[in-house]
Amino acid sequence: MVPTLYWEGDVVMILDQRKLPGKTTFIACKDMRRVIYCIQTLAVRGAPAIGVAAAMGLVLAARAIRVKDPVKWRERFSASAEIMRAARPTAVNLSWAVERMLALADAAPQEVETILAMLRRESELMLAEDIAINKAMGRHGAKLVPKKATILTHCNAGSLATGGYGTALGVVRAAAEAGKRVKVIADETRPLLQGARLTAWEMVQEGIPVAVAPDGAVGAIMDKDLVDLCVVGADRIAANGDVANKIGTFNVALQARRHGVPFYVAAPLSTIDLDTPSGDLIPIEERDPGEVLSFAGSKAAEGSEAINLAFDVTPNDLVTAIITEKGVLKPPYNRSLAAAKAVDKI
Amino acid sequence: MVPTLYWEGDVVMILDQRKLPGKTTFIACKDMRRVIYCIQTLAVRGAPAIGVAAAMGLVLAARAIRVKDPVKWRERFSASAEIMRAARPTAVNLSWAVERMLALADAAPQEVETILAMLRRESELMLAEDIAINKAMGRHGAKLVPKKATILTHCNAGSLATGGYGTALGVVRAAAEAGKRVKVIADETRPLLQGARLTAWEMVQEGIPVAVAPDGAVGAIMDKDLVDLCVVGADRIAANGDVANKIGTFNVALQARRHGVPFYVAAPLSTIDLDTPSGDLIPIEERDPGEVLSFAGSKAAEGSEAINLAFDVTPNDLVTAIITEKGVLKPPYNRSLAAAKAVDKI
Repeated sequence: MVPTLYWEGDVVMILDQRKLPGKTTFIACKDMRRVIYCIQTLAVRGAPAIGVAAAMGLVLAARAIRVKDPVKWRERFSASAEIMRAARPTAVNLSWAVERMLALADAAPQEVETILAMLRRESELMLAEDIAINKAMGRHGAKLVPKKATILTHCNAGSLATGGYGTALGVVRAAAEAGKRVKVIADETRPLLQGARLTAWEMVQEGIPVAVAPDGAVGAIMDKDLVDLCVVGADRIAANGDVANKIGTFNVALQARRHGVPFYVAAPLSTIDLDTPSGDLIPIEERDPGEVLSFAGSKAAEGSEAINLAFDVTPNDLVTAIITEKGVLKPPYNRSLAAAKAVDKI
Repeated sequence: MVPTLYWEGDVVMILDQRKLPGKTTFIACKDMRRVIYCIQTLAVRGAPAIGVAAAMGLVLAARAIRVKDPVKWRERFSASAEIMRAARPTAVNLSWAVERMLALADAAPQEVETILAMLRRESELMLAEDIAINKAMGRHGAKLVPKKATILTHCNAGSLATGGYGTALGVVRAAAEAGKRVKVIADETRPLLQGARLTAWEMVQEGIPVAVAPDGAVGAIMDKDLVDLCVVGADRIAANGDVANKIGTFNVALQARRHGVPFYVAAPLSTIDLDTPSGDLIPIEERDPGEVLSFAGSKAAEGSEAINLAFDVTPNDLVTAIITEKGVLKPPYNRSLAAAKAVDKI
């Protein structure tokens, strides 16, 4: 499997997902600015992958600090951390990864060399952990998948959105590995087509049958009884279970409810943000109108504006269950999410 | 305003909408086959425009029949009519236009020259009628629009989808002409982007502010209270008020209901098909997977399939009202649609 990101010596190598499925090229990042560029341009995307990229980027930032005095060093590192935290607003995993690296630096001994080594090790641990978490999530989620099932997903919550294996597609992979006959319907996911470009590519490589559909087709597809369950990832889950995820997810959840199809969210506990009480308080990134107005070598009439919200919020009443590495969480989410996070901290 | 289609001497000129908004070119059709090509490739699209194009195409077919015997002539003409009727399955206006031309030929005197002249006149009348119908629809619909309103629409139900003026966009135009301050949000409408390419173009030309949004954004846009009402066109309305329209319409209607936003359908009575009791009996066209799998010079991974249903069916319980040239029809639709069609026949 093509890695999403990895350390090559002292360089962070990031797969340029904007070029997929046509080309498999990596961007070599030697400083934090380059990692931020990758995050902001969506060369690397997906909440868990952004978290790991942020941790790696902070290692590069830490290494670039030229002062020796530990107090001043920590000040500089904190400043870098805040720049990284602001790279993208919606996925809470970015902030979560930054916090984790900051806490480690604070607790580390005084010697800068030691801190640097610890930060590097932590970034490697986060990558390895992320894959292990996704596999655990996959095992829990696979139990919800019938022996023969067509699973509809939106955007890409796969290996490419994570350190590896994937969240929503981790559930698909685990179900397939458990011998279930799964097919995938991948919403193409405009404007950047992560479903058509990335999810379809991952599934073809895995040998799992996949059909791409326009985002508007979800109602018609469910009318034809083609979908047994929906599984999507998440960028941030509020304390009440409202789920921020790629724009268009809300339509999937609403059609699933209308058609009596289960709608699951697969996300690590790091995506659950107990500090955000409800979805309306999640900051939603607005991106360049050009992503919407340009298409296939053409563009909308001069003078057209665009609405380019990168995410929407699926209200908790439409979420059948949330699949995490610690098990499947059910409503009422205020209780189940808080309990799962409390256990995680022990 | 650029015409959608017109007679130039004995040639049917059809605006090639596949090239919009980049280029304004016309396809000169000298025989019915060329008109069918335009209909099937979506050079001309939109239920009312397809109806008028079919009528014009049948004039070309009629003229090409070389037999003189009136009985044999009518047989040949009927055969051509059936070929035209099969060009696309979902929009009932195609079949409606074919029926109208067949009925005229049946009722006409014996002389072939006379029949030809009558068919030509009928096709001109249908074009003129369509524009008049749309203006009447606009007047009725404009009363439903607040003084200041943002109207969300899907696909293109504008001048380009009709003989002129438009159905859903006719309502927008009439509201603007009545001095109301209207803005439009145009769903881009994948896979063929009729919203981004055509609706935005029409609105820019009209001087009405327009913002294009990905089809997946409708939930997030309504969450932000940006939409006062939705108006869409229709390809076929069943006797019970179920509405077949461009894929993605069902999502708009379902989100509108969730957010308490009125959802209107604007369509001429010719789009109402009392012979089809409910939406599940409307034939839904499936188009080439390549329309979905190719994008922006790239394509989905080799081995991906696609689902490319051209239309979906919005259930009648989600339709606030149906705007026709005879007035605004309300639930229960079984009664109101039948009554409106009965009046129309008198």
